[in-house]
Amino acid sequence: MSSTIGTLGEFGLIARITARFPATDDVVLGPGDDAAVVRAPDSRVVATTDLLVEGRHFRRDWSSPRDVGHKAAAQNLADVAAMGARPTALLVGFAAPADLPVAWAEEFSEGLRAECSTAGAAVVGGDIVRSDTLTVAITALGDLRGAPPVRRDGAAPGDLVAVVGDLGLSAAGLALLQAGLADREPTCPAAHRRPAPPYAAGPAAAELGATAMIDVSDGLVQDLGHIAAASNVRVALRGAALRAPAALVEAVGTLARAGAPLRSPLDFMLAGGEDHALAATFPSGTALPSEWTVIGEVVEGTGVTVDGSVPAVAGWDHFG
Amino acid sequence: MSSTIGTLGEFGLIARITARFPATDDVVLGPGDDAAVVRAPDSRVVATTDLLVEGRHFRRDWSSPRDVGHKAAAQNLADVAAMGARPTALLVGFAAPADLPVAWAEEFSEGLRAECSTAGAAVVGGDIVRSDTLTVAITALGDLRGAPPVRRDGAAPGDLVAVVGDLGLSAAGLALLQAGLADREPTCPAAHRRPAPPYAAGPAAAELGATAMIDVSDGLVQDLGHIAAASNVRVALRGAALRAPAALVEAVGTLARAGAPLRSPLDFMLAGGEDHALAATFPSGTALPSEWTVIGEVVEGTGVTVDGSVPAVAGWDHFG
Repeated sequence: MSSTIGTLGEFGLIARITARFPATDDVVLGPGDDAAVVRAPDSRVVATTDLLVEGRHFRRDWSSPRDVGHKAAAQNLADVAAMGARPTALLVGFAAPADLPVAWAEEFSEGLRAECSTAGAAVVGGDIVRSDTLTVAITALGDLRGAPPVRRDGAAPGDLVAVVGDLGLSAAGLALLQAGLADREPTCPAAHRRPAPPYAAGPAAAELGATAMIDVSDGLVQDLGHIAAASNVRVALRGAALRAPAALVEAVGTLARAGAPLRSPLDFMLAGGEDHALAATFPSGTALPSEWTVIGEVVEGTGVTVDGSVPAVAGWDHFG
Repeated sequence: MSSTIGTLGEFGLIARITARFPATDDVVLGPGDDAAVVRAPDSRVVATTDLLVEGRHFRRDWSSPRDVGHKAAAQNLADVAAMGARPTALLVGFAAPADLPVAWAEEFSEGLRAECSTAGAAVVGGDIVRSDTLTVAITALGDLRGAPPVRRDGAAPGDLVAVVGDLGLSAAGLALLQAGLADREPTCPAAHRRPAPPYAAGPAAAELGATAMIDVSDGLVQDLGHIAAASNVRVALRGAALRAPAALVEAVGTLARAGAPLRSPLDFMLAGGEDHALAATFPSGTALPSEWTVIGEVVEGTGVTVDGSVPAVAGWDHFG
């Protein structure tokens, strides 16, 4: 008989799960008390929180529990990196039906642990409650290492616009999953299930003098639009600089052959979120490491343009 | 026509809500970027997270949205205080159906803001998503002011056991609400809707030399049981020291007259959680301020006893 979290109970489940989470040098006090205590070496802490709801942010038939753990951690750790900070710690709220198998919660925890390990962070605390809707609430903390946070409002005309990380793969993967075509092109569905944010590039961008930075979670145009609005500038992208990876081209072809609504690779790169690439602006002339791609420049004006025109793409609104 | 969060949209709702949250001296960067930045003056940060699920932790017909905001903030801020720390900041995850009235979300935010103000904390960030189940995820941060965290594992034989704050009122209030008798004795239902944790007593206890401390959220016996287990001692309570407040005696009488299952005031004080009192142990001879009540002592052994016997009370298990 398979065990459920209802039969194991709250405290049994906590004991099973927290045993999986190793400490790091940043952990002063880990799980098991009223609260955790985490190092904040420069006397400031970066903090961000996100919710993932089953059916809305993940589906149990499309993603393994380990995938969901990876993704839940990644999207929050990427927000920390987008401030130019090093992720240090994660807290996990877990709301689940009583009939959820214990194995699901354990595999989910393993995904969390592994993703935190990739980013250098530790899971330091959490909460487990019962709910009809499987919901994961993650809070990530980070360390700015003495540098100012890289905000959205610092872009200035003349700055370069650059990205690091994947664009469009997750959205194309979702489209393949929705069309029942995930077997045909596995790279994009895998990117949807487990985004791979370029964590180290966040603090590196801060050191390189990034003037503004954002995590691409709702779509490149929409997220650069936040930088444009906060900085009171226009972000002028060059379409030719947005080169589609082979897996994205392949996915678009697969979708077209199956009769799905026609969307180009560029559509996915401009509108697709959830890859958790980092987009940043840098002073003109900044020598960027090879993982960054310059995709445009900051000019006077408002909004985001591609080759001078406002692109016809919509980003993500959670109630849209 | 009343506005719903579905028609207003995610970004409209965020703009409406974050406008309500004033900054404090601890806020380096508030809502509106990928993450917030909060002061951590002694280079450590206390962090804790909790989920509240509609139907499980609150009911919209029993609590106003403002009540839910107060309670959601209070239970997390109390966890920070229970470490001996001063609460500094709150992050809020909000998952709601699209048909939730905007006014509900705004009133909820006002409750959060007011409770944070009482505790001296600021709301610095959050996330809003759509879900069939109204769910609130709160993370609270705090500042230890250079002192060691007051953990659960420091109690030693000979220590005093003391509490500050309400015991049993919230549980009696819940019983009255469940029995449809909330109009007969309003103090306990009010305590259930809006617990009033003694925030300042947490850091004060740390300064007084508390050897262990816990937030009473699951019931006095169960929560002192965590201290007993972590410290490898027995917590020996004196029943006569647990004096019931008038409102609790009144609530118990009202329930008894209505034919509810017989429970004594002491039952509610020992088993009732959610008042978010603080229970702590102190070295023998510590002169405690008048708001603390000494209710027993720490002795060799295991578990929690009342007048030498193991009490027949059960605490709270979220899957029990």
